[in-house]
Amino acid sequence: MAGSTFGTIFKITTWGESHGKALGVVIDGCPAGLSLCEDDIQIYLNRRKPGQSSITTPRKEADSVEILSGVFEGKTTGTPISLLVRNTSQKSSDYSEIASYYRPGHADYTFDAKYGFRDYRGGGRSSGRETIGRVAAGAIAAKILKEMGITVMAYTHSIGPISADLSNFDKDAIFTTATCMPDRLADAKATAYLQECMQQKDSSGGIVECMVQGLPAGIGEPVFDKLDANLSKAVMSIGAVKAVEIGDGVLVSSAKGSENNDAFVADNQSVSKKTNHSGGVLGGISDGADLILRAHFKPTPSIFSKQETVNKSGENIEVEIKGRHDPIIVPRAVVVVESMTALTILDACMLNMSTRIDYLKNFYHK
Amino acid sequence: MAGSTFGTIFKITTWGESHGKALGVVIDGCPAGLSLCEDDIQIYLNRRKPGQSSITTPRKEADSVEILSGVFEGKTTGTPISLLVRNTSQKSSDYSEIASYYRPGHADYTFDAKYGFRDYRGGGRSSGRETIGRVAAGAIAAKILKEMGITVMAYTHSIGPISADLSNFDKDAIFTTATCMPDRLADAKATAYLQECMQQKDSSGGIVECMVQGLPAGIGEPVFDKLDANLSKAVMSIGAVKAVEIGDGVLVSSAKGSENNDAFVADNQSVSKKTNHSGGVLGGISDGADLILRAHFKPTPSIFSKQETVNKSGENIEVEIKGRHDPIIVPRAVVVVESMTALTILDACMLNMSTRIDYLKNFYHK
Amino acid sequence: MAGSTFGTIFKITTWGESHGKALGVVIDGCPAGLSLCEDDIQIYLNRRKPGQSSITTPRKEADSVEILSGVFEGKTTGTPISLLVRNTSQKSSDYSEIASYYRPGHADYTFDAKYGFRDYRGGGRSSGRETIGRVAAGAIAAKILKEMGITVMAYTHSIGPISADLSNFDKDAIFTTATCMPDRLADAKATAYLQECMQQKDSSGGIVECMVQGLPAGIGEPVFDKLDANLSKAVMSIGAVKAVEIGDGVLVSSAKGSENNDAFVADNQSVSKKTNHSGGVLGGISDGADLILRAHFKPTPSIFSKQETVNKSGENIEVEIKGRHDPIIVPRAVVVVESMTALTILDACMLNMSTRIDYLKNFYHK
Amino acid sequence: MAGSTFGTIFKITTWGESHGKALGVVIDGCPAGLSLCEDDIQIYLNRRKPGQSSITTPRKEADSVEILSGVFEGKTTGTPISLLVRNTSQKSSDYSEIASYYRPGHADYTFDAKYGFRDYRGGGRSSGRETIGRVAAGAIAAKILKEMGITVMAYTHSIGPISADLSNFDKDAIFTTATCMPDRLADAKATAYLQECMQQKDSSGGIVECMVQGLPAGIGEPVFDKLDANLSKAVMSIGAVKAVEIGDGVLVSSAKGSENNDAFVADNQSVSKKTNHSGGVLGGISDGADLILRAHFKPTPSIFSKQETVNKSGENIEVEIKGRHDPIIVPRAVVVVESMTALTILDACMLNMSTRIDYLKNFYHK
Repeated sequence: MAGSTFGTIFKITTWGESHGKALGVVIDGCPAGLSLCEDDIQIYLNRRKPGQSSITTPRKEADSVEILSGVFEGKTTGTPISLLVRNTSQKSSDYSEIASYYRPGHADYTFDAKYGFRDYRGGGRSSGRETIGRVAAGAIAAKILKEMGITVMAYTHSIGPISADLSNFDKDAIFTTATCMPDRLADAKATAYLQECMQQKDSSGGIVECMVQGLPAGIGEPVFDKLDANLSKAVMSIGAVKAVEIGDGVLVSSAKGSENNDAFVADNQSVSKKTNHSGGVLGGISDGADLILRAHFKPTPSIFSKQETVNKSGENIEVEIKGRHDPIIVPRAVVVVESMTALTILDACMLNMSTRIDYLKNFYHK
Repeated sequence: MAGSTFGTIFKITTWGESHGKALGVVIDGCPAGLSLCEDDIQIYLNRRKPGQSSITTPRKEADSVEILSGVFEGKTTGTPISLLVRNTSQKSSDYSEIASYYRPGHADYTFDAKYGFRDYRGGGRSSGRETIGRVAAGAIAAKILKEMGITVMAYTHSIGPISADLSNFDKDAIFTTATCMPDRLADAKATAYLQECMQQKDSSGGIVECMVQGLPAGIGEPVFDKLDANLSKAVMSIGAVKAVEIGDGVLVSSAKGSENNDAFVADNQSVSKKTNHSGGVLGGISDGADLILRAHFKPTPSIFSKQETVNKSGENIEVEIKGRHDPIIVPRAVVVVESMTALTILDACMLNMSTRIDYLKNFYHK
Repeated sequence: MAGSTFGTIFKITTWGESHGKALGVVIDGCPAGLSLCEDDIQIYLNRRKPGQSSITTPRKEADSVEILSGVFEGKTTGTPISLLVRNTSQKSSDYSEIASYYRPGHADYTFDAKYGFRDYRGGGRSSGRETIGRVAAGAIAAKILKEMGITVMAYTHSIGPISADLSNFDKDAIFTTATCMPDRLADAKATAYLQECMQQKDSSGGIVECMVQGLPAGIGEPVFDKLDANLSKAVMSIGAVKAVEIGDGVLVSSAKGSENNDAFVADNQSVSKKTNHSGGVLGGISDGADLILRAHFKPTPSIFSKQETVNKSGENIEVEIKGRHDPIIVPRAVVVVESMTALTILDACMLNMSTRIDYLKNFYHK
Repeated sequence: MAGSTFGTIFKITTWGESHGKALGVVIDGCPAGLSLCEDDIQIYLNRRKPGQSSITTPRKEADSVEILSGVFEGKTTGTPISLLVRNTSQKSSDYSEIASYYRPGHADYTFDAKYGFRDYRGGGRSSGRETIGRVAAGAIAAKILKEMGITVMAYTHSIGPISADLSNFDKDAIFTTATCMPDRLADAKATAYLQECMQQKDSSGGIVECMVQGLPAGIGEPVFDKLDANLSKAVMSIGAVKAVEIGDGVLVSSAKGSENNDAFVADNQSVSKKTNHSGGVLGGISDGADLILRAHFKPTPSIFSKQETVNKSGENIEVEIKGRHDPIIVPRAVVVVESMTALTILDACMLNMSTRIDYLKNFYHK
């Protein structure tokens, strides 16, 4: 099991390499009767496209999606939805050189160690293009959640040392700025910082935050499949993520119980919380508050300054990576985090439908 | 699927509530021929026992394990190993009161929201006692890994504001101090800090770090089942964990590529790295360096100071929690993190055995 | 994965050997709120007990079940239900001899081939006692299905050459005759036939049929997880089953389409079928008619006449098996087939709850 | 989980409808380093093509396969292999009529009952064309097994009342006759019988038998994932199969133990069996003898004679099905049974690689 399948009921299987013929995903377990067309998916794919600003690679990728199955007369049929994105603008020539050595910070060495050889063109399966399948499937999951009254929204929380001020959240800016920050002032500072990185032939890390709103209390399973455990896997499985936080995240380890506990309050029978240090999850189950998670992305490993490494003949060499690379992964990863979150939440909502005997009796009219 | 099963080939299923008759685990997929006796498991369980120092609850729990199946004449048979731990010293009376309201920071409210009611005695399934099954199974996984030359070691990295100095790592201290810190000086400071917390009727969070040594390069699957993704799920599924870091973790988001990349070096054909910012994982696959992860635990939610909350009749009330509770979860959670890590690593090693056609041909003698 | 887990949402994990300390099962994913006590389960276990007639082994097995978790104040909590049955009356002495050779028709040789050695006492994990976990879990699944208006009923269809006359079906006879046939005349003939087998130191095979009533149309998944495919696995996984039939079963291969097709008929908007050659499944999905399956059991391999085999030193020898063995497996297997069917049907019903977008919207009140 | 995924380590996910844009499969977990090209797969797909004889529909289907991922420089990379077959010659017009009613013996009614509507064109997902993905994946599994010394061979055992004489097995005939029988005399009789069926506007059922040779003893898991249980699911999941037999199959229910047991014999340390009533499986684990299974296929439900059924308005009507249909499913299903068997056997062989502690130690060089 090479682990290209994710989810239990809403189950996706992604495939494809950076410079192969195509990439895609099969979504199995999508409920029947959902209106779905290629535009619903293309809108999401466009959010991860490069070449859209001064801080992403000028590399152009069409990435237009084709629905091959599972949709009939504009509606999902309940059978697998196969989505295809042809690779069009990949220039393998750019990459032929790296066949001979291991790029620092990349998976070249580990793929060789595991499989004995690798498709070295653009990183093959370990390329950022692998996320196309995740995003295409995530677009469908997000659409279903929306019909259920649940919205998933990710944005850039910080880039290098510059963080967005979330106290005056500018939602529109997420979709219109190059950094996808909900704060135009921070966006300007971050853009300047990234240009500086580029001049230094360097790259930067950053943080993506994701918020789920409208999620009812009671979603998630109590032990190994805790909602936050599955979200951590979902988000950590995105290339370049090295840390995942839920709610207050790393701050909890230096906090005291009196600071960290969220007080419950009742307002005519409806229970809510005064604060949300928990980030919307208690004991692995949603508590009705906004669900908040953060993913820490490492800097793009492909930098143009000189680096030490090893070639396949086992010699120590110095390299300067060529090609077209983003100085930061984060802005294009925002929609990937949003997608993985949507996939995880939807699957948990489906699994929750059979957790009480009354649910079964009502469904089967007894 | 209430998600009480973990793993693909080495698969465990845990069960049991804090104040039920017993807790346990079934390990399915354990290889045949391993020498195994109850002591192998008891040693691990003893590491999570309370009542062993001034900074854990005086509550006594015998927690002695019984092997019910899967072992014959001192060796595992390859069939499921069922492990049982009877609940002996639980006093339900201590808990009857909390049946009526939702403890802040606990899963009382979310369990009611999900299931319609809950076993309120000591938190039921959401109690820390749920980890008994994880640790019993982890002891077996760790023993197998050891025979494969792979060691897993967790320890307390920090408690509240006090961190261990890992530069002069005192392994012995992990097993002999109350805090499980590999640094006796930090242990003394942390113990003082915790006593202060207790006087303030408060509790503290902390960090557990885990290191895997001897892990060959090539372990882990490249997309959704990345080694670090599965480890994140494994560790985040432990109650009270709110953040997981791999290698440099949260630091990567403010780092530059030139700082974060690890240079490869060759020493007569064997490839290694000059640094280990990656924490031993590149592209979701082990890179041959030590694997490093950190889990951030929130403070024990059961604190004795007055708190606001809601009762089951939907009224706002003030409560003061009674009973016997640890001022910190971390020291007893060290072996739980170690166990979840061992389970994840072993399963990944098993899955890796069929990843090349030559492996199959060699195994089946062709 | 030693494959001791069955089901996707309603998931069971069985464990235990014939002569180990105990056998049991963990049921994960049982909906919360079901009234459940040990008697609900014991009634099923009693149906597979030996020593109840002249045609079963005089061996006595108490097989009394203990609920260890997942039930609180008489109701299931939604967390794993652990069921334990202690082995009390096993005499290992009876079996010590067979440690040295491979019994024809048994799994002795294949276990050694797989694992390198085996727990030879009473067949260890391959003993009929392994079904205790299946039946204990099946009792719970059947109880849930009953609350949903679905009943599962298995009975002996034939023993050796003697078949029950199903045209005048005597339900009461299933539970009161030694053969579990719904036909007292056939029961008498079959009993005589079995006594003859015993005199000849021989054993007999037979057929168990199972009928599911009240199952709505639409249950089952269309491709690999067809309802009849999952039922085939469920039933074929019972030791000694060598063939599974759905509806007309083996007869379809010699039939013509005009004979085999079931005509649909409408009676004010409700659709039914004039005949039921399909056995209630079309395209892997229930069609609203009674679901019918048959399992063919081989004769008990333990016979007392002289047999040729091989010992562990690789020598050809002749053996005469001692001990206490049933001349037929079927009567005690009836409840096992019923249990495996109930587990499969319930799991399919749970998976069906998220197959339409409207189901999700209604459940989440949108 | 719409159940379009099969296998644990060697995992396939199929998708596509009869008259959609395309059909395909994603194979995840294929070992790296296998030589693979489109011809390896096309050879298998050609075996299920129609229009190749007087007894299959004149309908032409190109069904040419494209490898989209997972193969680099002629070798598998270990990452998912995506295979695509475009639908070219489907005439939806032929099917528009059947949108309005439920064809007897087809899944039209059950799909509507499950999903609320269906892609009625050529049966959509329930069409025989769904098997294209199974066969494409099966071709790869069979190639890997061959390199391991294991061969899988299916053939037509009988058609209606005519059975092949297996005592003088003509392997060549399987690939050169229209019926795929290993007996040219039976092929001639069966062809005549089928022409008679066609004249009567009727169709016929038949039996496919599959034999696995070179399978070592010890493959398969002992309880729910018995080798024969997984094979039963694999084969019963093929549309139109209503019964599965292993070894002597249905005959065992009327046999006696003295007839059914296979005696073991030793020939300098190598153990074999004198007979093979078990069909190569004992206790769910391969016993080293040839593995034998049979699948009983119902007659093609699409017959041209008048039939009674119901239309979507709930009225009783009479219909005469038009279009181009095979008078029998069996000859084209032979390669499907072979493929599902190969997929199941390979996955079981992979799972078997971690069943002993020594296997892990040897693999990891300890």
